[in-house]
Amino acid sequence: MSSTPRLYVTQDLAAGAAFALDDAQSNYLLRVLRLGPGGPVRVFNGRDGEWDARIGDVQGKRAQLEPEIQVRPQPDVPASAPILLFAPVKKAETDFIVEKATELGAARICPVLTERTQTRTVRLDRFSKIALEAAEQTERLDLPEVAELQPLAAALDALADGTRIIFCDERGDDTDAPWGGESGRAGPMAEVLASLAEAPVAILIGPEGGFTPEERDWLRGRGDTQPVSLGPRILRAETAAVAALSVWQALKGDWR
Amino acid sequence: MSSTPRLYVTQDLAAGAAFALDDAQSNYLLRVLRLGPGGPVRVFNGRDGEWDARIGDVQGKRAQLEPEIQVRPQPDVPASAPILLFAPVKKAETDFIVEKATELGAARICPVLTERTQTRTVRLDRFSKIALEAAEQTERLDLPEVAELQPLAAALDALADGTRIIFCDERGDDTDAPWGGESGRAGPMAEVLASLAEAPVAILIGPEGGFTPEERDWLRGRGDTQPVSLGPRILRAETAAVAALSVWQALKGDWR
Repeated sequence: MSSTPRLYVTQDLAAGAAFALDDAQSNYLLRVLRLGPGGPVRVFNGRDGEWDARIGDVQGKRAQLEPEIQVRPQPDVPASAPILLFAPVKKAETDFIVEKATELGAARICPVLTERTQTRTVRLDRFSKIALEAAEQTERLDLPEVAELQPLAAALDALADGTRIIFCDERGDDTDAPWGGESGRAGPMAEVLASLAEAPVAILIGPEGGFTPEERDWLRGRGDTQPVSLGPRILRAETAAVAALSVWQALKGDWR
Repeated sequence: MSSTPRLYVTQDLAAGAAFALDDAQSNYLLRVLRLGPGGPVRVFNGRDGEWDARIGDVQGKRAQLEPEIQVRPQPDVPASAPILLFAPVKKAETDFIVEKATELGAARICPVLTERTQTRTVRLDRFSKIALEAAEQTERLDLPEVAELQPLAAALDALADGTRIIFCDERGDDTDAPWGGESGRAGPMAEVLASLAEAPVAILIGPEGGFTPEERDWLRGRGDTQPVSLGPRILRAETAAVAALSVWQALKGDWR
């Protein structure tokens, strides 16, 4: 873990092009970390890569920041970066999902309403702040997009054409049908991923209590879903989200 | 998710062999869930499988429980069930690791002291309680063993002969050497796991700040470790623990 503070900024980054940090970031560097002029900072803005920078003039409560040298270019977002669709659960667990999805490289984080979703309002500004802080900490060079809460069907319809939906079906191995068919059992995640052609992917995690039988039938009847099982134990929603993103990155994503 | 409450008990389970629940479990069933005599409960003890049971007589604050029929036999612990070795981090995150390791089927949960471990005391009774509640919720039929905090070297030496140690090396891809050798780079987790022979396995997660260079050299110099990388982003310790256990279960464990 680097000990140099790492900040996301909105300003353009170029050598020698100093700019003023906002009050919160200035306070963090000057008061919390007790840095002064010349202090080292790393910055990224999601466009211009990562820069070594130094604190410049301090006027009142606000510090100038001077980018010096680009240490990493801005990478393309990997085509394999998954979208996460999840039903919000309790506050701490939902915050956790947003933080971990950012660490695990999700391109977009989409809360969705399902029939059993308990939480019917989410605070987009809160999610954005959590994602920003996680991106700073995890050394991402971009921020995940955080979407408004929307009904499941609308969220699926809004996906790009050709997106495969990895539908994590908590009770997927309960039915008698052989897996793989539209109404059949969910296959082991590793086995299903191995059989998938390269395509944009969205991972769908249900709420506490799972999807209703009607939702499961509807999901399985769509041509773009692939039910997968996450093993013999019942996972909490936040565990399932982290587990599915991890297995995806290990097998099809940027951990390879 | 089943709506029938699920309890871990210490008593033997056999048809018709009623026993008294303790005060806490009685209170949970009678006051929190507002169940009464005849109310359905599922119970397991780590030895006798899972039983459908009913609440029997209630005397004062304590309820009798009457096991009726075994609904799942006690399975053998899968030979693939991993041991988790981790350096305790902050309280909430450490609790989280214990909970999630239980959900993800860890056979044993071992807090270890490394040079950069910030937390030098842990409460074994607290970990045991968290693991018990997670086992009840996740429908495990056994409890993970929770070990006392011990120095890393002692914890590794205490592993059964032949155990492979999957050493999650946060900065494993920083060195110039080719991966796979004793002092070389860490390989992608999926690739390394695919190359492993079947053997008992322990997954080792470092503290915030990672292992020291000396610890990394020492770990890589042992004959029983396999350094693996968890991708290009820096993961928090608790994220790494959940991610590594998930990928293990998907590729080599009981999700297959």
